[in-house]
Amino acid sequence: MDAFDVTILGCSSALPAFGRHPSSQLVHMAGRYFLVDCGEGAQMQLRRFSLKFQRISHIFISHLHGDHYLGLPGLLSSMHLLGRTEPLHLYADEGLNQILEMNNKYSHTVLKYPVVFHPLDFSEPKLLFEDEKVKISTLILKHSIPCCGFVFEEKEKPRKLRKEKIAELNIPIASMEGLTRGEDYVAGDTIIPNAELTADPLPPRKYAYCSDTAYKPDLVPQLQGADLVYHEATFMEDMRARAEQTMHSTAKDAATIAKEAGIKRLILGHFSARYKDLNPLLEEAHNVFPQTYLAHEGEKNYV
Amino acid sequence: MDAFDVTILGCSSALPAFGRHPSSQLVHMAGRYFLVDCGEGAQMQLRRFSLKFQRISHIFISHLHGDHYLGLPGLLSSMHLLGRTEPLHLYADEGLNQILEMNNKYSHTVLKYPVVFHPLDFSEPKLLFEDEKVKISTLILKHSIPCCGFVFEEKEKPRKLRKEKIAELNIPIASMEGLTRGEDYVAGDTIIPNAELTADPLPPRKYAYCSDTAYKPDLVPQLQGADLVYHEATFMEDMRARAEQTMHSTAKDAATIAKEAGIKRLILGHFSARYKDLNPLLEEAHNVFPQTYLAHEGEKNYV
Repeated sequence: MDAFDVTILGCSSALPAFGRHPSSQLVHMAGRYFLVDCGEGAQMQLRRFSLKFQRISHIFISHLHGDHYLGLPGLLSSMHLLGRTEPLHLYADEGLNQILEMNNKYSHTVLKYPVVFHPLDFSEPKLLFEDEKVKISTLILKHSIPCCGFVFEEKEKPRKLRKEKIAELNIPIASMEGLTRGEDYVAGDTIIPNAELTADPLPPRKYAYCSDTAYKPDLVPQLQGADLVYHEATFMEDMRARAEQTMHSTAKDAATIAKEAGIKRLILGHFSARYKDLNPLLEEAHNVFPQTYLAHEGEKNYV
Repeated sequence: MDAFDVTILGCSSALPAFGRHPSSQLVHMAGRYFLVDCGEGAQMQLRRFSLKFQRISHIFISHLHGDHYLGLPGLLSSMHLLGRTEPLHLYADEGLNQILEMNNKYSHTVLKYPVVFHPLDFSEPKLLFEDEKVKISTLILKHSIPCCGFVFEEKEKPRKLRKEKIAELNIPIASMEGLTRGEDYVAGDTIIPNAELTADPLPPRKYAYCSDTAYKPDLVPQLQGADLVYHEATFMEDMRARAEQTMHSTAKDAATIAKEAGIKRLILGHFSARYKDLNPLLEEAHNVFPQTYLAHEGEKNYV
């Protein structure tokens, strides 16, 4: 089974505190490495956790609040200094391109590798990327500036061949690909139904990242059935007024979304600097949705 | 005696490595707090070492390579989130003002306190700031983009009163200030020479920061007699060609400048990521100038 995991590099909200860093995480699926948000210090966190950052092919930035992108210029520079030549795909609000160009202008920097910039459209969910194994789409969030989350999905996997049965019936190799696609085996008058020769594959897995958002129940359909969701929980219910004013969620909001969407596991993150001890946030969410966990920087979360 | 010390927050060159951070340091003199350069992660380093960053009144940025300023937008934002209202004075290449304005534009940020921007003139040394106790000037460095260091000097202190002698001779209080300025005591026909009533004050102390520079012997007059100098030592002599190409110094270069200027102590910093063990750099410099030390992040260096 292909690896599919998420390493959280930063789970603090705007003000870093108690050793927690601004938002960033590394999504690893089927040998691909995607960086999601890149708060200040992300490159140091990648090094600290021995995550090789030259393997990152795509970076997705949810919005242009500093705690979600201020680590990017430094990371791009380090990739350059370490001799990168592979293109890097960057998905963000188009303003980020201007910010990066201005940084490069004053530092007289010309990167040794191409950065392919893909401006995000925050009006409705879009498919951003797909290849033979994965697809990545946006999730429109509700925040004080244009902001989106990202959904990482495995594609439907090929059906699993029943090897013993295939050997027994002497099915030729040329037919295998059709079988994995669900076709029956046909040779002259012989027809063997696909179900006799193959088994259902593992269901495709799904991870969603909801960076900064007010409570937004219309996220539910897109999160439906996800294996893992990271949802911001900047505040607790006793700070509801502040959460609404700053367009953030409470731990209970995050859990309510998780429950409604019938996801498997929820990770809380984007914690306010007012909370040293995070257990009260965990408890508030756990009361609504038991499969809730706290983000831990450096820890790998299996999807 | 007024405190005068320097806490190094980052001593790495462009690529952070081995837990070392990009350039930044906090200069504390006579109750004033000055931040010098602000590489990525500076705000986290300040917190890590329990240095209260709201006390910083002036920030000096040597040049616009990312490893010297990319921590600034995050620090300014955190000062804002923590409710700062005091003005902050920022000295840097004028391009930085544009970079900060663009960051604020896309994040829809309006800081709650004024940032007073002072564009640096890189053509010749200038006095940037003075008050009754300290003065701060630039030091023009030799680098691939406009770059300057900074010299922090105490002002000449008032002469020390010889209290016993003054009591014995019944000198009135009104005359004290004149005595501390070096005036003789005069009352009618009585003249008491200043030297009988006062003693020399402690000599003013001087610290200089040389961030990024090729070997530049014409820094010597400005560094003359400094108590402490932080000088970059990105490379060792075996990398001289690379040092010249990138306009950086070797450990030996830094030591040679220190020796020529007759300074008291030299701190090496801005270490290349190629050196895990820094002892060879220390040894190379020590052979030329024995009072050489390595920068240690978080450690207070007394001037």
